Amino acid sequence: MDMQTSFLDRLFDKGLLIDTGVDGLYGRSGQFEDVIAGFERLIGTVGGADKAEVIRFPPGINRAYFEKSGYMKSFPQLAGTVHSFCGCELDHVSLIKSMDEGTDWTKDQKITDIVLTPAACYPLYPTIAKRGNLPASGGLYDIQSYCFRHEPSKDPARQQLFRMREYVCMGTESDVTEFRQLWMDRGVEMMEKIGLDVKIDIANDPFFGRAGKMLANNQRDQNLKFELLIPVTSTTNQTACMSFNYHQDAFGAKWGLNLENGDVAHTACVGFGLERIALALFAKHGLDVEAWPQPVRDALWG
Amino acid sequence: MDMQTSFLDRLFDKGLLIDTGVDGLYGRSGQFEDVIAGFERLIGTVGGADKAEVIRFPPGINRAYFEKSGYMKSFPQLAGTVHSFCGCELDHVSLIKSMDEGTDWTKDQKITDIVLTPAACYPLYPTIAKRGNLPASGGLYDIQSYCFRHEPSKDPARQQLFRMREYVCMGTESDVTEFRQLWMDRGVEMMEKIGLDVKIDIANDPFFGRAGKMLANNQRDQNLKFELLIPVTSTTNQTACMSFNYHQDAFGAKWGLNLENGDVAHTACVGFGLERIALALFAKHGLDVEAWPQPVRDALWG
Repeated sequence: MDMQTSFLDRLFDKGLLIDTGVDGLYGRSGQFEDVIAGFERLIGTVGGADKAEVIRFPPGINRAYFEKSGYMKSFPQLAGTVHSFCGCELDHVSLIKSMDEGTDWTKDQKITDIVLTPAACYPLYPTIAKRGNLPASGGLYDIQSYCFRHEPSKDPARQQLFRMREYVCMGTESDVTEFRQLWMDRGVEMMEKIGLDVKIDIANDPFFGRAGKMLANNQRDQNLKFELLIPVTSTTNQTACMSFNYHQDAFGAKWGLNLENGDVAHTACVGFGLERIALALFAKHGLDVEAWPQPVRDALWG
Repeated sequence: MDMQTSFLDRLFDKGLLIDTGVDGLYGRSGQFEDVIAGFERLIGTVGGADKAEVIRFPPGINRAYFEKSGYMKSFPQLAGTVHSFCGCELDHVSLIKSMDEGTDWTKDQKITDIVLTPAACYPLYPTIAKRGNLPASGGLYDIQSYCFRHEPSKDPARQQLFRMREYVCMGTESDVTEFRQLWMDRGVEMMEKIGLDVKIDIANDPFFGRAGKMLANNQRDQNLKFELLIPVTSTTNQTACMSFNYHQDAFGAKWGLNLENGDVAHTACVGFGLERIALALFAKHGLDVEAWPQPVRDALWG
């Protein structure tokens, strides 16, 4: 924890991240954003030729989609539902009175139809299913959005609102497992290009409760999720900066994603944790971007 | 309403916006995003020489800041608070049971420390105040984020999650009123460059309830907020695509923003509704960007 707090303090002092008074909720300087933009440019030079369809969702998802996704079964503690005041003028008077007195003013906040996006690709599956069967060649999508996870922390690599860039592949089992392997290789190469030491390992997601242990075991035993780990604040407890997920036909069956021949589509997704990658760069090459090695600067900004 | 629904349907058909099943919550195609990026580039060519400090906040704000801002006094119906599950394993079992049975599962969702950002500049004022007194030359900031307003609508120009780009000026009364006038002139010129017909008028914000009428009258009588209006789905009921706000010393006094000489800072902000401007372009020049007039394309993409 000390290394994490001290890295966070250095980022605040340099103005790269901006304290907002809530752990895991930070402003970013223009310089920090330039690093993210540079890395997204690098993603484009590597993945651009694949001609993925670009779709951008806002940071919220239809609550009906979210409920059906099963996220609340696995990670209820991380989700953020959006609530609004739906009362009348009298309720408003009492709300303002509570607020002035410093008592709980939130009892008339009612859940809306929107939940904060927990992972960038969640809104994609029902969207593609609505279009009808996938073409024989399957589908490839380029996704990015802010995501929310309720896990306040002093570790700058564990933010409550952060950006995830993803490629998502839908097709046959061999299509999507090849896609996943391709990006595991590309990911390692990309991180080498920007001077980061990486290793790939089986993921260990924080499934909720005792029942969650079974889900975690299943994910591990079936090699469903790998992560690309980079030292940010610790070499022994490294940070997952990319993930490589194979959903088998679980999302295909859930959302009704079918191939041209009627088979249920398999899906896989590859995610970049953009803030984490930027932080890994600052941790490795220092907080002064001008002083970064020229090959790293060239890889990011050309 | 018919014109709005029909424009929305045409945007869906063309794939520029993507239906997510919730009014006002839409995905965007790569083409739609290119228009937004082009307009942000144009903003940069106009405002870049002013050397504003670039700060990017995520789409959420510290709830303590939000509460102090007074937003719940004026627009309680529009705000979105973020709630998370904070229960134990037994609560989780009952949550999942409710979800399976289709009954209300949200009773153990507790408010978090984060509220969705209602306007891009809200997190800025307390952030700058924490730095101490402003320099004699004041401060100028370049801000952009997704914002949330709970107002489901079939009007594509009234989205629940949308992006707002802002410049914010802090300084003497004459500094910030000159800044506001400068951007009113620039805004008109920019919109002319991209072939949009504009007019500037006094704003008419949807303050809540009967008490809100007084706030609305005050805003109008003191010329505190102007809007740049463009026809999107209607020529008689035009869409506010920019706003020009003079806060007098209200934000300075609330947040403790002081000038070098100890005077309370005056503040003003100028906001671009990025989705609305993109929609105004599609409404005026058609849904096929390749067919837009060359001068408009040049202004956006150089």
